[in-house]
Amino acid sequence: MKNLSICLTPELIHLSDLKGKVAVVIDVLRATTCMVTGMAEGIPSITPVAQVEECKALQAKGYIAAAERGGKKVDGFDMGNSPFDYMEAAKTGKKVAATTTNGTLAISKSAAADEILIGAFVNLDAIISYLKAQEKDVVMVAAGWQGNFNLEDSLFAGAVAAGLEGEFELEDDAALATKVMYQAVKNDLAGFLAQSAHAKRLAKMDIQKDIDFALTLNTYKVVPMVINGEIVLA
Amino acid sequence: MKNLSICLTPELIHLSDLKGKVAVVIDVLRATTCMVTGMAEGIPSITPVAQVEECKALQAKGYIAAAERGGKKVDGFDMGNSPFDYMEAAKTGKKVAATTTNGTLAISKSAAADEILIGAFVNLDAIISYLKAQEKDVVMVAAGWQGNFNLEDSLFAGAVAAGLEGEFELEDDAALATKVMYQAVKNDLAGFLAQSAHAKRLAKMDIQKDIDFALTLNTYKVVPMVINGEIVLA
Repeated sequence: MKNLSICLTPELIHLSDLKGKVAVVIDVLRATTCMVTGMAEGIPSITPVAQVEECKALQAKGYIAAAERGGKKVDGFDMGNSPFDYMEAAKTGKKVAATTTNGTLAISKSAAADEILIGAFVNLDAIISYLKAQEKDVVMVAAGWQGNFNLEDSLFAGAVAAGLEGEFELEDDAALATKVMYQAVKNDLAGFLAQSAHAKRLAKMDIQKDIDFALTLNTYKVVPMVINGEIVLA
Repeated sequence: MKNLSICLTPELIHLSDLKGKVAVVIDVLRATTCMVTGMAEGIPSITPVAQVEECKALQAKGYIAAAERGGKKVDGFDMGNSPFDYMEAAKTGKKVAATTTNGTLAISKSAAADEILIGAFVNLDAIISYLKAQEKDVVMVAAGWQGNFNLEDSLFAGAVAAGLEGEFELEDDAALATKVMYQAVKNDLAGFLAQSAHAKRLAKMDIQKDIDFALTLNTYKVVPMVINGEIVLA
């Protein structure tokens, strides 16, 4: 049976052996939700970069540049970290370059994996189906918040664990814990997440619309993956 | 209102500000269960040490020396990491020195806190009562397993979070997550934990009796704390 394990924050990634495995990077609020949305809406590719400067350099080459730090758009960039921005960007037909506080770091820290997928509630079932159909062990990599555990990414990891149980061995305690947590609150995800630290931070920024969108399941059927440093569709 | 946060593994302790706070160190299987048991049964003090060599040096000075690595007693020591060993040790009236894989490390990494308490299911209500009666913010420090998240310590953290809710603000997402997890499985703690990675490891070592003991709530009413490098009773 294939194994499923969960890395609760990139700060613990050194404890996960990613070699030969599929990594699923999760940053529900909001980086991976944006990426799934953008790819599903027709952006040709999204290049995740760790530094604001790299993002600026790609902007100079004609990319639409998205830069977010601490939940806000960085001055001088085309857009921040809202899925609705990505929908607009998709209409231009241009490539996107993106840097975010936690999500792009989680992608770069997952580089040792054989494949890196981009997951969020908006493509939950597509991720589950993809993982079932392939043969490798899987590590879910929650982006967390500045190195720490967060609720929304862990809940998504738990949703995948619940969906894969029976076909995958839940290999570590984090998989068991997040699965139980997801099953306990899945009928009121939004209500439960409203208590979370990051939701409270984001609420102050008046982006409830983004949060509602990010917590809607299965809006899209795409599975974006990182190939040669670019996010493209599987 | 006082704040409660949870550090899910000592590997994340640098993200917690312990200064001026009470830390509760948790290593349910089995270090803190042993410590609570030993203190409640009458051991005058337990000195937690990080290294096997330090433990050996205290043995030479007349301490009963407990050393565990990877779940097993280290050769040449008086006892390993079973609460029943600690009950026997209590009958001698001697001091104990102890080193374990995860628990003693969690204690040493909590040194910045104002107070360090020793918690386990066997003294759950005593810990909750103590924390309610004092005035400081609290950080629960789960010992985990070799740096990683584990189920039993997180469940205990969640049990404390559930017990303190209303009087404490659940400050971080880990407190919310572990509380929900505990509430979902509290009626069958043993059944749920039997699935955990560490329980499976320990089951191979034939110490089911220790596990059953560790998962029994409120056997003791004591609150051990670390004072000047020794665990003593509050």
